[in-house]
Amino acid sequence: MVEQHTVRSFDAELELLGRHISEMGGIAEKMLADAMDALAGMNAELARQVISADARLDALQRTVEEETVAVIARRQPVAVDLREIIGALRISGDLERVGDLAKNIAKRAAKIAGEGRMPRAMVGLKSMHDLAVMQLNDVLDAYAQRDAERAKAVWLRDAELDSLEDSVFRDLLTHMMEDPRNITFCTHLLFCSKNLERVGDHTTNIAETVFYIRTGRPLPNERPRGAASTDLA
Amino acid sequence: MVEQHTVRSFDAELELLGRHISEMGGIAEKMLADAMDALAGMNAELARQVISADARLDALQRTVEEETVAVIARRQPVAVDLREIIGALRISGDLERVGDLAKNIAKRAAKIAGEGRMPRAMVGLKSMHDLAVMQLNDVLDAYAQRDAERAKAVWLRDAELDSLEDSVFRDLLTHMMEDPRNITFCTHLLFCSKNLERVGDHTTNIAETVFYIRTGRPLPNERPRGAASTDLA
Repeated sequence: MVEQHTVRSFDAELELLGRHISEMGGIAEKMLADAMDALAGMNAELARQVISADARLDALQRTVEEETVAVIARRQPVAVDLREIIGALRISGDLERVGDLAKNIAKRAAKIAGEGRMPRAMVGLKSMHDLAVMQLNDVLDAYAQRDAERAKAVWLRDAELDSLEDSVFRDLLTHMMEDPRNITFCTHLLFCSKNLERVGDHTTNIAETVFYIRTGRPLPNERPRGAASTDLA
Repeated sequence: MVEQHTVRSFDAELELLGRHISEMGGIAEKMLADAMDALAGMNAELARQVISADARLDALQRTVEEETVAVIARRQPVAVDLREIIGALRISGDLERVGDLAKNIAKRAAKIAGEGRMPRAMVGLKSMHDLAVMQLNDVLDAYAQRDAERAKAVWLRDAELDSLEDSVFRDLLTHMMEDPRNITFCTHLLFCSKNLERVGDHTTNIAETVFYIRTGRPLPNERPRGAASTDLA
């Protein structure tokens, strides 16, 4: 009876961790979507909302850190139980950094909101954003279902985001070369595009963590890269 | 007698963690220095050495993670002992990312090694690098001595790095506007400068961790920013 209670209680602790991760994922996705809307719509007010949303994400990460430490000390978990706990800690770190990247895009959006020039490269940035959010959403589903194969599929698809970033990079450079007045503005967009690519890096980190929780093994070799990628993530 | 043995053994575990952090710090600093030499000297071979050095840093971070989890499970530490363990985990994460940033600079150095044009902005980048490495070195000393005041001084000085980055940013933009042929090259330098600023962010994270280990409190409010900073870290 006591043992069963202990087992249930550990499950309850895992479930609480899972709920916090899930809340973090939802906040990170919303921050990204709002940051892109703020950028495309030159909406400084929305940008400020994204910036202030980041505090909740930071607080949740600290909560997850405290919970994982408490669970390790109390349960001394091994094998898959330990991987679950370490996995939650790693994923919360990646989601917190996705929030930082969204916040950075929002800061740039607020900065250039008055510029009034939106180059065609914005279309490429929007595609990057859509793919990055789809990937993040997918990997969080893979985590919720502890689905190693689905996580691996997300991981493999990151090459597409790298290729997209490469083409946005070239497009923005062309735009800068055509007219020097575009340079400052496009430089901010270059950094936004790099931020979206880094969101993809954190998504692949999460995919690796899900695969590791489920199988106890790392994913094979180096993460794939788009053939056209500059590989300068 | 048994208790004393336990105490000694916990100290020995902390010492081992400290040695790993110290090794990580040494590798990260060398990677940064070599990456900048590779960039300034257009040395693709040195750049490749930096890129391959990163694997050791990643392996050490995993080792620290395993050790901290084992110590938490075995000792169930509280108060300052727990802060020591969590602190080691956080610092190893920051140092691993400093290595990633150095690796990224090295990749860009390898990429532009054949360009043959080195703008005056390289002087600014070199100053940023020197300050970033000095700060990193200082905060690792503060950690080794568990010196909260020294950590706070490093943390306050980060504003200088932000100001320097801002001036390098403006300098590179001017260079790009003067001659479109500089744009591609300078874009890589812009990202290098951003990477050095992010090294400073990780240094301030470490400073916050040292302060937290020693005092159990966070550093006051938001981290300071250079007055001229674009605040787009």
